[in-house]
Amino acid sequence: MYQPTDTQTLLRSLRTLRAVREFSPDPVPEEVVHDLLEVARWSGSARNVQPWELVVIRDRESLAVLAACDGYAGHLAGAQLGIVLVMAGDNNEQETYDEGRLSERIMLAAAAHGVGGCIGWFTGQGRVDAKHHLGIPEHRLVRTAISLGYPDEAALRARQSSGDARKPLAEIIHQEQYGRGMPD
Amino acid sequence: MYQPTDTQTLLRSLRTLRAVREFSPDPVPEEVVHDLLEVARWSGSARNVQPWELVVIRDRESLAVLAACDGYAGHLAGAQLGIVLVMAGDNNEQETYDEGRLSERIMLAAAAHGVGGCIGWFTGQGRVDAKHHLGIPEHRLVRTAISLGYPDEAALRARQSSGDARKPLAEIIHQEQYGRGMPD
Repeated sequence: MYQPTDTQTLLRSLRTLRAVREFSPDPVPEEVVHDLLEVARWSGSARNVQPWELVVIRDRESLAVLAACDGYAGHLAGAQLGIVLVMAGDNNEQETYDEGRLSERIMLAAAAHGVGGCIGWFTGQGRVDAKHHLGIPEHRLVRTAISLGYPDEAALRARQSSGDARKPLAEIIHQEQYGRGMPD
Repeated sequence: MYQPTDTQTLLRSLRTLRAVREFSPDPVPEEVVHDLLEVARWSGSARNVQPWELVVIRDRESLAVLAACDGYAGHLAGAQLGIVLVMAGDNNEQETYDEGRLSERIMLAAAAHGVGGCIGWFTGQGRVDAKHHLGIPEHRLVRTAISLGYPDEAALRARQSSGDARKPLAEIIHQEQYGRGMPD
């Protein structure tokens, strides 16, 4: 069981996680990366199949090649490292869902170290090209690349002030039956 | 930025999250549920579309009905509450992936309060039946139900001693290129 102060620390970390797309040039120490990978390793998955492998990329040229692949992973070009998720390739809903769970853990583990991250997706031919570039067997699925690095503080402030809205609870929560709102 | 002690607290929470399937009869306070929902509300999603609503169920008979729906959500019968995720229903890979991210946040927020949880899935006709039971419009997708409650400590100890293995890092991590292992 956690102490009450830990509870608040944990909840704040969960509530305040935001994507970071612009990174400082400060390198991310190996020990920090190791902590992220250890969290990734312990992620839960349906029937505990752990349908994933991870490729850690620090090489700047390699990051630039990946950033240019079709999709929405251009932020890799400015990241200190990228983690590419290699999924088993069954490409069913369990795998996609577990990939989301794994991604969230990595983002939260990074945040625990003050490291920012952004989830990027390859699309279409980008998935094929990313696999080819990293030497990943064709039957695997490569969809997600997570950019990581210490935040560029100036960019972060600018983005924060622009807001990052979420729907109010009253719009998304139902009690007991769909359509029954939150108690006052 | 977090203090170093917070970093370790956060990482431990992330590394040690395990599914809890047996629950004590102690009720989960409303304030705790509110904290979970607030974390859920702030979850990230592709293009920030937040393609979700949540139904919170405490009624024991209702939980039993849901537990009996086709799939793997039988643990709802013994839970203090269940949270059913109602997805927009586009049923594309982004939605499934975001559902995984949201589920993970809810599980972690519960753990911050010492509340255990287990992710259950409805399958086939179970998805239709769960929607009907909760009055959810047909065009929505209902797949995930999360059981929540304080852990039954005896069951938890028995399960922990049975182990909950994960693959070693050396099996799942590659450096720069697929097939290149971890540095020693």
